[in-house]
Amino acid sequence: MPNQILLIDCPDETGLVHRITGVLFRQGGNIVSNGEFVDRDANHFFMRTEFSGDVDAAGLLRELREALPAATIRLADDVPRRVVVLATTEPHCLGDLLVRHEFGEINSRILAVISNHETLRGLVEKFAIPFHFVDHAGLDRASHEAAVLREIRRYDPEYLVLAKYMRILSPQFVAQFARRIINIHHSFLPAFAGAGPYRQAFERGVKIIGATAHFVTEGLDTGPIIAQDVISVDHSHSVADMAHAGRDVEKIVLARALRIVFEERVFLSGNRTVIFD
Amino acid sequence: MPNQILLIDCPDETGLVHRITGVLFRQGGNIVSNGEFVDRDANHFFMRTEFSGDVDAAGLLRELREALPAATIRLADDVPRRVVVLATTEPHCLGDLLVRHEFGEINSRILAVISNHETLRGLVEKFAIPFHFVDHAGLDRASHEAAVLREIRRYDPEYLVLAKYMRILSPQFVAQFARRIINIHHSFLPAFAGAGPYRQAFERGVKIIGATAHFVTEGLDTGPIIAQDVISVDHSHSVADMAHAGRDVEKIVLARALRIVFEERVFLSGNRTVIFD
Amino acid sequence: MPNQILLIDCPDETGLVHRITGVLFRQGGNIVSNGEFVDRDANHFFMRTEFSGDVDAAGLLRELREALPAATIRLADDVPRRVVVLATTEPHCLGDLLVRHEFGEINSRILAVISNHETLRGLVEKFAIPFHFVDHAGLDRASHEAAVLREIRRYDPEYLVLAKYMRILSPQFVAQFARRIINIHHSFLPAFAGAGPYRQAFERGVKIIGATAHFVTEGLDTGPIIAQDVISVDHSHSVADMAHAGRDVEKIVLARALRIVFEERVFLSGNRTVIFD
Amino acid sequence: MPNQILLIDCPDETGLVHRITGVLFRQGGNIVSNGEFVDRDANHFFMRTEFSGDVDAAGLLRELREALPAATIRLADDVPRRVVVLATTEPHCLGDLLVRHEFGEINSRILAVISNHETLRGLVEKFAIPFHFVDHAGLDRASHEAAVLREIRRYDPEYLVLAKYMRILSPQFVAQFARRIINIHHSFLPAFAGAGPYRQAFERGVKIIGATAHFVTEGLDTGPIIAQDVISVDHSHSVADMAHAGRDVEKIVLARALRIVFEERVFLSGNRTVIFD
Repeated sequence: MPNQILLIDCPDETGLVHRITGVLFRQGGNIVSNGEFVDRDANHFFMRTEFSGDVDAAGLLRELREALPAATIRLADDVPRRVVVLATTEPHCLGDLLVRHEFGEINSRILAVISNHETLRGLVEKFAIPFHFVDHAGLDRASHEAAVLREIRRYDPEYLVLAKYMRILSPQFVAQFARRIINIHHSFLPAFAGAGPYRQAFERGVKIIGATAHFVTEGLDTGPIIAQDVISVDHSHSVADMAHAGRDVEKIVLARALRIVFEERVFLSGNRTVIFD
Repeated sequence: MPNQILLIDCPDETGLVHRITGVLFRQGGNIVSNGEFVDRDANHFFMRTEFSGDVDAAGLLRELREALPAATIRLADDVPRRVVVLATTEPHCLGDLLVRHEFGEINSRILAVISNHETLRGLVEKFAIPFHFVDHAGLDRASHEAAVLREIRRYDPEYLVLAKYMRILSPQFVAQFARRIINIHHSFLPAFAGAGPYRQAFERGVKIIGATAHFVTEGLDTGPIIAQDVISVDHSHSVADMAHAGRDVEKIVLARALRIVFEERVFLSGNRTVIFD
Repeated sequence: MPNQILLIDCPDETGLVHRITGVLFRQGGNIVSNGEFVDRDANHFFMRTEFSGDVDAAGLLRELREALPAATIRLADDVPRRVVVLATTEPHCLGDLLVRHEFGEINSRILAVISNHETLRGLVEKFAIPFHFVDHAGLDRASHEAAVLREIRRYDPEYLVLAKYMRILSPQFVAQFARRIINIHHSFLPAFAGAGPYRQAFERGVKIIGATAHFVTEGLDTGPIIAQDVISVDHSHSVADMAHAGRDVEKIVLARALRIVFEERVFLSGNRTVIFD
Repeated sequence: MPNQILLIDCPDETGLVHRITGVLFRQGGNIVSNGEFVDRDANHFFMRTEFSGDVDAAGLLRELREALPAATIRLADDVPRRVVVLATTEPHCLGDLLVRHEFGEINSRILAVISNHETLRGLVEKFAIPFHFVDHAGLDRASHEAAVLREIRRYDPEYLVLAKYMRILSPQFVAQFARRIINIHHSFLPAFAGAGPYRQAFERGVKIIGATAHFVTEGLDTGPIIAQDVISVDHSHSVADMAHAGRDVEKIVLARALRIVFEERVFLSGNRTVIFD
């Protein structure tokens, strides 16, 4: 039997770990790994427990909900997440995901790739994954999003991954996939949000550039951050050099974020993430 | 009341977290932070729990020892550790510790500094800390160590910190302070153990150099590693440039290791460290 | 004789390196190290040459100015820079500078420390450096700055170093030390400019924090960046934890920037720095 | 016309830069970027100059050889390098190279992939690159190498890239491709040379792991280092976790090394590399 993952968060109080592990123990679960965190500012408790054993999910959840009436409780299995990827023309993040996916590295199934350009079709089809070109020419944003949404709906994905998808999504679109869209932005947010972050970085004369993977929310590049990393640059880097050097950070940070999310290691605490990794 | 820290390790079995938190709960402790780890290879369980509350230490330990007869159990308080520092002639690690100590940053009291050179006396005495010069001229290693030991014994320290102390300690000396001597070595061990690591690094043509803080054991630079970090170098770095650039890594890594150890965040698992930080 | 450093920048054209090295050669200079850079966007040439030899400075400059009428040419020696440090209450950057200074590590002489608090007097006076308390109580900004300026003027420094000086300097003040004030800001700019960067970082939920050393200009935290670095943080870092962890980055980044500037390795190119290191 | 790259190294003497740039200037070359380095220990001069302009290569080389009779002089163009890749079963480095290659990111043409396993055939053939399986079953090392060599010879490559090729090459094999074989080793050399570096790293209890790209020489993992990088690990990383986390470092370091080598940015200085990047 595959391991199961129990995710609990609730207002903090004394004895929570003892109570929760007691329920797990009685239901026959063996803890494989366990992480807890208390946000002292918010007085909120978070716990992620991976366990093995022949545990009846319904019984476990019922007993936990009785013991912790104020808690948000979720029981996740370890099966691959169903994912649709959106991209535009840059191949590095998408290509990296496709190779990882081909060899089972990320806990996911890429169901399809949707793009507003034809550029990446060849790359995607090498890996025998459906590629859908949804042209934005002549369409306003709402109409284009509706067309994209029709393609997405065919696959009923759990997550959307924006692998350098260069169009801004409307709040209406985002609202349909709350906490289920993951974007890679090519700067260390909150610096250089929006368009042209490498151009902005060049003009500001920074000595580091970076990338940020985050959940997409209504605001532009303001959603909860999952992973970030940086590399050093200097005056000899043109905008193009920065973009080139930044690609490796972008793809590594995106892949790291997807692994964390798809292994159910992330809680949201307001606009911040609590990550057990 | 200051928090207390409970450190338990034992062979892994089902229900340990539940049992331990149950004892803590009954004894009136409130968990402030908790970390657990199971070494799957060794089937061994480690747990560090920081708790508040008016808990009777003797009662807690008695009940825990009954509940966990095979466990190693330790209850630590949060008071500053008593420390003697050994150094030779380089000021950067020692100076950094003295400034941190002056402003209460590290959980320790530096009782004295002992050196086989007079070079650092001025620096140490600025901070009103006793400095003892124990000359090695004309002494064999055993005699010099005996003289050093006499000075150390006057202070009865819990820990010895080797802040760039450039003499090798004998196994007999080390045995008297098992797991209580912390050294900073100026390479990313196990590369470049022993003398002249920057010279070795230069000759090998590496593109990174680093530093390692570790517990001192009988073997040269082979003890359990507490913290490591690196920086980039290139062909333009001479041996002296590497030594210069490396100083900042050395002092930061040593300080980080001391913080971790003095806050009781470290378990030993054979020659490896398990660190809750 | 100590080495001399030649700094030239001018509009780019063919043959500059040949012409400049020709003049140096004729004047008897031996190049010790040489760096050139052409900013393609601005079509501007930068060159830093360290040379030895018994070269007549006036003759060298005359011949260079004839050969390069459009160039900015500067000849710098390698003597310690005269520095006044401003600080408020935090000891880590100042303490680090004082220890480095004591052992001659940075190419500078710290002439005095000025603070709007008494907190750091003891630390500074340990190192036998004058400490001036300039209270801001009851003074408006202009009056306080005038009082600070009076103390500074007594020492006629080449550079002012803001080692966690927590007051904003007026444009009038800054204008008197153009390109001669170096500040350490506790974020990776341009993120989290202004007050409370760790609080801002915590609230944004970033996974990295950093520090930026920059020249001070009229705008708040918008001057040319000299050095930056970051460290990783996670959800378990409170604002205080971030501030604590960030201190090591701040002091290392500030020291690195001072070394670069005091060794005459920095050109300004608009609001960007060109650094030969 | 594409830029050309001039690579010169020789015993250091006064006036070299002036003389070389003079020749370039007279031959009509415009310097695009220039880097020089003097190894003080070896008293040896290195210079890499990228230049544009309608320069007669033969004439330039003739005049340079007259001016610098003791120098090693090389004129390289900027055309893609001809490369054969050897791999075994791990897809991450190879997959990364194939995606970069597909989009023209690395200055190279991958002519073929040779492996002692069939595992990666599907991946390679997606990209329409010849894949040759050279079984080692039943062959001694010499015979297997001879068979591999026959395949390589068909393509007449300039470079061999070992993208996690897990067999040790004989000195006889290596001698035929001196300075033309690039390997990625999954540790920060010189630590953990040879087999099982992640197992070695786990057992030593290090807090960082890394990867090293180097030229292959007769000794095992002792050739000149081109690029290295590291990531942090802790006690919770099993050997498999380290191997998993290390993959991203391996592929990025290998790609960086290939870029540097294929753009003619590397000189050898004994067993060290001098890199202009």
